[in-house]
Parts: sequence; structure tokens; C-alpha cells
Amino acid sequence: RINGQRLWDSLMELAQIGATAKGGVKRLALTDLDKQGRDLVVRWGREAGMSITVDQIGNVFMRREGLNNALPPVMTGSHIDTQPTGGKFDGNYGVLAGLEVVRTLNDLNIRTEAPIEVAFWTNEEGSRFVPVMMGSGVFCGAFTLETAYAARDTEGKSVGEELERIGYKGDQVPGDHPIGAYFETHIEQGPVLEDADKVIGVVPAVMGLSWYDCVVKGMEAHAGPTPMGLRKDALQVATRIMQQVVAIADRYPPYGRGTVGMVQVFPNSRNVIPGEVKFSIDLRNVNDELLNTMHEEMLAYIEQTRKDSGLEISIERVSYYPPCPFHADCVDAVRKATARLGYSTMDVVSGAGHDAIYTARLAPSGMIFVPCKDGISHNEIEDAKAEHLEAGCNVLLHAMLERARI
Amino acid sequence: RINGQRLWDSLMELAQIGATAKGGVKRLALTDLDKQGRDLVVRWGREAGMSITVDQIGNVFMRREGLNNALPPVMTGSHIDTQPTGGKFDGNYGVLAGLEVVRTLNDLNIRTEAPIEVAFWTNEEGSRFVPVMMGSGVFCGAFTLETAYAARDTEGKSVGEELERIGYKGDQVPGDHPIGAYFETHIEQGPVLEDADKVIGVVPAVMGLSWYDCVVKGMEAHAGPTPMGLRKDALQVATRIMQQVVAIADRYPPYGRGTVGMVQVFPNSRNVIPGEVKFSIDLRNVNDELLNTMHEEMLAYIEQTRKDSGLEISIERVSYYPPCPFHADCVDAVRKATARLGYSTMDVVSGAGHDAIYTARLAPSGMIFVPCKDGISHNEIEDAKAEHLEAGCNVLLHAMLERARI
Ligand SMILES: NC(=O)NCCC(=O)O
Ligand SMILES: NC(=O)NCCC(=O)O
Repeated sequence: RINGQRLWDSLMELAQIGATAKGGVKRLALTDLDKQGRDLVVRWGREAGMSITVDQIGNVFMRREGLNNALPPVMTGSHIDTQPTGGKFDGNYGVLAGLEVVRTLNDLNIRTEAPIEVAFWTNEEGSRFVPVMMGSGVFCGAFTLETAYAARDTEGKSVGEELERIGYKGDQVPGDHPIGAYFETHIEQGPVLEDADKVIGVVPAVMGLSWYDCVVKGMEAHAGPTPMGLRKDALQVATRIMQQVVAIADRYPPYGRGTVGMVQVFPNSRNVIPGEVKFSIDLRNVNDELLNTMHEEMLAYIEQTRKDSGLEISIERVSYYPPCPFHADCVDAVRKATARLGYSTMDVVSGAGHDAIYTARLAPSGMIFVPCKDGISHNEIEDAKAEHLEAGCNVLLHAMLERARI
Repeated sequence: RINGQRLWDSLMELAQIGATAKGGVKRLALTDLDKQGRDLVVRWGREAGMSITVDQIGNVFMRREGLNNALPPVMTGSHIDTQPTGGKFDGNYGVLAGLEVVRTLNDLNIRTEAPIEVAFWTNEEGSRFVPVMMGSGVFCGAFTLETAYAARDTEGKSVGEELERIGYKGDQVPGDHPIGAYFETHIEQGPVLEDADKVIGVVPAVMGLSWYDCVVKGMEAHAGPTPMGLRKDALQVATRIMQQVVAIADRYPPYGRGTVGMVQVFPNSRNVIPGEVKFSIDLRNVNDELLNTMHEEMLAYIEQTRKDSGLEISIERVSYYPPCPFHADCVDAVRKATARLGYSTMDVVSGAGHDAIYTARLAPSGMIFVPCKDGISHNEIEDAKAEHLEAGCNVLLHAMLERARI
């Protein structure tokens, strides 16, 4: 069993770097604070006897040798960058749980057959630089190093420059690094475990995701003198589509998701009928066929609305990640470890993307969820219980040991 | 009959002050450009033999003496400030039509019993400083001079300072200025005349208006991991109210109006369920009882939505202007002048507020509308036909002469 107090203390110490007044953390990717966080975790890794490798996109691998170092490592990890108004646990927990596994193996003098590695991936959050999950995405070849280097923040600073500046542009070619199996512990970022009062979420898969930008064009006109029948009110038409996004998701329980998160109205003046409304659509499902059905239903509704309203409506898909089922071996390892340890458990499909969906393209991968308070993350009030974090870390220890063999 | 070409030429000359690339005008209240515009109109007034009075809120009265100067003047006017992306005609037409009436009387050597005055009111648009219709509002005592002086633009400059700076803080106490009758010519700012192919709109009344701020509070949460049934999506609830605003207006034709023009979503991120949505509501009707019914129906719907959704919804009325019926004598004067001149005509209730609703509190008032292209105003593409502007000015001449007596 791991040392829950030590895990908690490390989480709290790391959370001081970029701590916010409201109890959260602001440690954006490749900032000075990210460098401080990276340096601290690397120091802890070295103190635990691990060797460090950094690749060209700044992914860091901390390695504990095995008895048979020809075997590919059993890896765990996550990210330590945060949202602008982020919490202490998102990502950080996955990295420090890995560190705690190694510290525990050291304490107990356990040698594994395969090496063990703890990784942290660059810019998972995507808040400062798009796309999200950048480090693991480059690692698995989803996009090129050049694309990633060229990404710029709102001040015009590029990933390439910033990596160099903070000293984390390593030598290793991304992906040129074998993985035997990959596990990632993470807070759930949703309310399902808490709602069902379970401690461990076994994650069979991550939902697929489609992101769209939709623009409705009407005609701006004065709110007073323009009779109702002569209006081309872009907002009224847009709100119908916004409601349909949720209606479509509701037709595909339990894993259909539909969200409109971002809305811009032009000219956005109290007494002007909106001439243009731009908004985002986020559709998810764990089943790619159903996700595609949802996509088709949305396009059909928009086509119908275009006809009914006579307004110009454009819709563009801006991102697509297919659903990612995790490898049966890894899912089973997590399930068995949970049973052995006697924790209450249920399967929880991940609604959010994680670095593990990219490692899954290269090696058997799996995830372990623990509850977070009210299901809230990407928020300074994000919170989790020490006992749940400890339980998740114990499951990680046992799952990794099963794969790495003692 | 007035000189249509001279009226048009003056409009085009004034429109050069603050002319925009897209053919519009940006001449915000109390800016250097507003001063230039005011100076030009005052010069034209002087050249037409008028004397100038400026009151403490910067309203300018240009006076042509009558045969009996004990009689209160028959006044016309409007405003020369514009929207940030305004047009050449909104307001400016009303002022220059008045000037053209005086020039015509001079040409024809016509003396009136009562004096004739041409006014332009400060900050009608309310774009730089709120409230709208500031000069006429102070003039009729709707709010105090101190309130108006204290209004500040986004840079922190106050109305009091800016009036002083451009040299238009006059001596006369606002309202200390008799009015016998007031006429205002204006582009319709709506599509009704154009749609019906009529030249002159006789304006029996201005609609009453209620403005509200509505805030729906839900709970922000991650768009992926949060099941549809556990969401408190503020936007989905807000869109129901937004649609109801239009549904309510549709229930009260022909003069019910309902518009949501301004929307802000928090945190406005693609993969975050909106935790808060703030939006404006604009309800109008020419009948105060019906306006009140619309108000009550909206409150009832919000109350019901509060219960159905369990979300917190606040609604606050931020402005209210009662409907303003114009004086029968002035409406008749406009109607008779139109008939005498043989223009095609119809009654058009004004959906937009105008300075005339404030003068109506002090003296018999009336308005004359002419068509504008596609009903569009508050837009750089605002346009109107010279022949229509000429027609409206002829009607103004005849209506004023009826009241001022030759
Ligand atoms: N974990 C996480 O927030 N990933 C970002 C992409 C998503 O919205 O799922
Ligand atoms: N004429 C005009 O645009 N007035 C502003 C107030 C309103 O929205 O009616």
C-alpha cells in the first residue's frame, strides 16, 4: 500500500507553485511557473532514484530501472500544466500518484521485471496553446513537432521559443521511446462516482468528440420600429439550434452529450435585433456510430432550420476525436486491483479527453478515476478527498505491478 | 415648397464631419467632431438670420422672430449626434429640415405670427453617455442637470467637462424656454413605409418601452463528463426565455415588440457548460395596458421557468418609458399638410424613442416620418431618397405654418 499522507503532502507542495487566492492553481503550460513545477517534480524523481529523459516537445520521462531493462517500461503519468482558473488535482494527481508508486516500491525494496516510468506530458490543457494534449499528441504522431512548435499564445510567443526558454526542449525524438503499458489516474471531472457513492472508477473507454462552429446570419435592425413579421433575428434562430443540440444528446442516453458553451452576438446592443450569432457545439458519445448519428441529426436540423427561417446558417467541424476504448488487459488489471483492494467501484466512461487516448494508439492503456467534489474541475474550487486519492494510487500500484511483474 | 436640393446639399455637407469609409457618420455626442457639426449648423442658422441660445445641457435653439414675439415659438428640431456606426440622416435630417423651412420662409419673405425655432438636442443617441435623449430629458425635467453632468463615457470623461471643453455649456436654465408646439421630422428607422410604398408617415404616438436585465445562474461543469441529467445549464434555460420574449410580442400584434439584443455567457468556453447567462430584454407596445400585460406575462413565464428548471433567475427592469400619444392638434396639422400636398401617406406608430416624447410633456408635439432604405438605421448603410426627404420637409413647413400662422 502507498503512503497517502506523503502523496497528499506532495500534491499540496506542488499546488503552491501558481497558487491562487481562491485556493486553486494557475500554472499555464511553458510559463515560468510551469518550469518551477517541472523542476520540483524532476527533483523529486531524482531523489527517488529515477533517471530523467526529456523529448523535443518537452515531455518528461522519469525511469526506475527493472530487472530486465530490455522490456518496455510500464508507464504512468499525466500532466502538471493547469487551466487559468484550475485546481490542485487535475493532471497533477496522475503524475504524483506515479511518483508515490515509485517511492513505495523503494520503501518496500520491490524490484520489478520491467522498468517503471512516470511521465508528464506537455500542455495537456490547451489553454495557452492549442491543440490540447499537445505533448502526447506529438508523441503518438497525431500531429507534427513543427505544428506544435508553431502554436502561439495570445501574446504571440510560440511553443518552440517557450520550451527553449524554460529549458525543457529535450533531445529525444518524440515517440522514440517504447511503452509496454500505460496507466493514468485522474480525478473524474464529473459527478458520476460521487453520485453513486463509489471510490474507484474503472474506465473502459473515452468518449469521442466533435466540435463545431455555427454561424447564423440575419439582418440587424432597430428593435422598436421593426415589426415582428419583418425581422431576420439571428438569435431567435440560433436558440432553436442551441436547444436542439441538447435534445439530440438526450435522445442517446446514457453517453450522448451535447453542449453549447460559447456564444457571441453581433452587434450585441440592447435595442438592435441581432444580425449575427456565432456559437460552439460540442457533441460526444462513446459509440462512434451513435456520435455520427448525432452529427447527422444536427446537420439535418440545421438544414431544416435554414429552410424554415430563410436565414444563412453555416456549420463547420473544427475538431474530431474518435471514441477510444482502452485495452482489455489494462482495464482488467485495474478491475482486478480494485477488487483485490476491496474498494467500491463502477465503470465510468470518460467524457473528457486525456493523454491516455494518445498513448492508447501506441500501447495498451487504461485509466483509473477517483471522485472529485461535486464533479467540478477546471475551477479553482476543484477538490478531492485524500482517502480517494490514496485509493486510486493503491489501485495504480497494483495494476502496474501486475503488468511489470515482480 | 422648400428647396429639396439645398436640403440635400446641407445634409451631405454636414455628413462630411465624421464621415466613415463605409459612407456613414461617426460623430459622437460632445466630441470634437460634434463641436464641428454644431458650429456648422449654428453658422448656417446665423446666416439664415436666426439668433442662438444655448442652455446648460448644450441644447441649441435657433430663433427666427415672429410678428408677435410674446407668443411661444413653434419649434422643430432633432439631434446631430450619431451612433458610432451611424448614418447621415438619423437626427440630422430633422435639424436641417428645420433650417430649410426657415431658409424657405426667408426666400419667400414670409413672416409668421409666432416665432419659429430650430433646436438640436444634446446626446440623443446615448451611445457615448447614458441615458439616451439626454438634452430633451433634462429640458423637460425627466432627470436633473446634475445627473446628466455626472454621466461618463468609457474613458471616464463626464458630460459636464466635455460640454465645457467644446464650448457648448450655455447659460439658459434647461426648460426655461417656452414652446408653443413642437414638430420633429425623422427617418422612420423601420420598414413599414417602404413596405407599404408610402412617402409620409403620420405619427400618432411613440411606443412605450420596458428594458430589463435577466440573469440565469446554473452551475458550470465540464461538457464531457457531466451527464445530461445532472446538468444545470444556464444557457439552455436562458434560450427558453429568449424565445418567450418573441412569443409574447407575437401575441400582441401589430404593436407588440420583443427583442433580446445582448447576450453574455460565462465562462464562454467551448467545453464548459455555461454557469451563468446575462441578457437584455426589450419589450414595447403603443398601448400601456398591453405593455403591462406583456410585462406580466414575461414575469409569469420566468417564475414558471424558475420552478421548472430549479435554476436561479433574476430579472430587473432598467428603463421604462410609457407610450407617448402625440397631441391631436399636431397630428392633425401633419395629416392636413400631407393631404394638401398630395403625398401618399399612412399612420406609423414610432417604435423608437425620440426627443419629441420629452417635448410632448411640455407642449403639443407631433412627428413626421419619411421612409429609409430597407428600414435600416443605426448603421453606416442607412439611406434615404432625396425626394422623400424633400416631401417630409414640405409637410413640416406647412404644419409649422398652420401653427405659427402667417
Ligand atoms: N480533460 C480535459 O479537460 N480535456 C480537454 C478536452 C475535452 O474537452 O475533453
Ligand atoms: N431613435 C432611437 O434610436 N432611440 C433610442 C431609444 C430606442 O431604442 O427607442
